[in-house]
Formats: sequence, C-alpha cells, structure tokens
Amino acid sequence: MSDPTEARRTAHRRVYEGKVLSLDVDEVEEPGGVKATREVVRHAGSVATLAVDDRGRALLVRQFRYAVGQAVWELPAGRRDGGEAPEAGARRELIEETGVVAAHMELLAEFFTTPGFCDERMWLFRASGLTLGIAQPEADERIEMRWFTPAEVDAALADGTVREGKTLVALLMEQRRRD
Amino acid sequence: MSDPTEARRTAHRRVYEGKVLSLDVDEVEEPGGVKATREVVRHAGSVATLAVDDRGRALLVRQFRYAVGQAVWELPAGRRDGGEAPEAGARRELIEETGVVAAHMELLAEFFTTPGFCDERMWLFRASGLTLGIAQPEADERIEMRWFTPAEVDAALADGTVREGKTLVALLMEQRRRD
Repeated sequence: MSDPTEARRTAHRRVYEGKVLSLDVDEVEEPGGVKATREVVRHAGSVATLAVDDRGRALLVRQFRYAVGQAVWELPAGRRDGGEAPEAGARRELIEETGVVAAHMELLAEFFTTPGFCDERMWLFRASGLTLGIAQPEADERIEMRWFTPAEVDAALADGTVREGKTLVALLMEQRRRD
Repeated sequence: MSDPTEARRTAHRRVYEGKVLSLDVDEVEEPGGVKATREVVRHAGSVATLAVDDRGRALLVRQFRYAVGQAVWELPAGRRDGGEAPEAGARRELIEETGVVAAHMELLAEFFTTPGFCDERMWLFRASGLTLGIAQPEADERIEMRWFTPAEVDAALADGTVREGKTLVALLMEQRRRD
C-alpha cells in the first residue's frame, strides 16, 4: 500500500464552536478512495508535566472531572493558550495548578490522544530542579496535589489509582527510566 | 480536602448526536462548589489490543486519520458495540482489522483517554496464542498491518513513529514486561 497522504473535503459543517472545543461534521474522500462522513472534535492542543523532585517523587493532582463523573489523578496539565510554545504552556499550567517552578524541562513525548475523532495533540514534559511556590488555580478548578514515591507510583499503576491516558504514558516512561 | 463525589447538573443541552459521538453543553455545580459550563463529548467507549506473537513481535496497524490529517500507527482498536463486553469487542476488532484470532486475552489497563472533555473509556488488552486469518475491514477503513520486533518497537517509541496515546501505553507496558 502506498503512503496515505491527504484527504479531500467535499462538505463541511461546523456544528458547535465553544470554549474548550469545536465540533465539525465533514464529508471527505480519504487516501485510498474512502468516502465517509467524519465527526471531528477540534481542540487547541494540550500540555502536561511530570514533575519529579530530588527524591524521585512524582507530583500528581486530583480534580473532579465532570465528563467522567469522578475525581481523577492526573499530571498537571491544560490547554495551550493561542500560539503559546508548548514548554511555556506546560510551565504556566504547572505553576497555576501546583505552584511548582522547574529549573529544567525535557520533552518526553508528543502524541495524539484520540486521533479517531479528535485532533488534540499532547506535549508531555518532565520537570526537575523544582522550587515550591503558591498555586494559582483558575476559578473553575479545585485541585488537590500529592507527591508519589516511586513505590507509590508502582502501586498506583498496578491497582488502577492512576487511570488516565497521558498520566499512564508519563509514569510508564518514568518507571523505565528508573529501571 | 474531602473526596469529591458528585456533580449537580442545573442545565443540559445536547448540541449534536452523531454516529461516533454526541456533544453536550451542561451547566453544572461540581463538588467543592465550582459552578461551570462544561462541554462534554459523549462516546460509547473503546477497545484496543496489543497482539504479540511467539517471537515477541507486536502487531500495529496504520490508517489515515482524518481528524489529524495523517496516517497513524496504532493498536487494532474500535468502538464498543452497544452492551458488548470489552473483551468480546477487542476480539471482534482484532479479527476485523487484521484477521488475527487470539487464544489468550489479558486485560492490561482500563483508563480514560481525555477526561477533561470526553467520557471515552478505553479497555486495553494483550493477545497471545495467535492464529492468522483474513481481515474484514469496514467499508470506510483502509488498513495496513505490520509486525514490529522488540527492537523495532523500541525504535518506533524513540523516534516518534508511534505517537498515539493508547498505543504508547500498551507498548511501554510491553517494554517493561520484557525488561
């Protein structure tokens, strides 16, 4: 099979345009001749940070996520603001949600979260050389933070305490780094 | 902080109801007293399978993903059909997309892909004891498949060939299992 390259859009309807996301319903002809209606969530992209302190502890935050009806342990993360560089966005979200300032930021991975129906791109960083400050959460955020030792990270992965995509990716990468 | 538990929905609007997803815009009062408008993508949930053969090779598929405008290497995966059990759905998608039948299926992880704005739940399986058959893709699917040796998996993770959430989770878990 030749490399698929581009799609041809034959019709476009923006069904919704919101604060966090927009929704398009497009008629397309894709590489290989596939004709289909595609429902696509458009998203500005996200940044997330695995902050690791000098004792190897990982910083996670927990907040209520209305979409899934429960509180979820996650990396500090958020949407990119406009044309903001991913690293700058990750630093901003880390400070806002946890008050932590990082001397060093390393890009761990860049990936699509759910390319089947959404264009969200995720930039995942690892932060070290940490200084603790004061969190500045947004008006609609209530955030609990906790430092997980390496043994606690292992347990949280094994028992399902951590069950969110980007956070699994980052903690699995950190486990491998430790081994 | 006490454990956040439930949200109170004070208004609800279904903006779109489609084939793959629906979109709600809800006014809510969340645990901790946060009042907010939440845009939520509703999704039936997904199943995905890391199939590993007797030589330790992992099976990935590549298809054009309109949402991100490019072809993406991923685990064989798909939406759950109605009340279908996750393992049955994973077996069905594996056969449809690759023709592979698995003697053994193991649940690797269950997680939320993007709980900030979507309720999609992902069930991730590892398949072994594989028998090769004939793929039966759906009308709107054009799927290329390839077996990655452990060294090729390591390279694909390192060089960004694999850049999709669930696939990163599964391959990182497989690397750890190998180590």
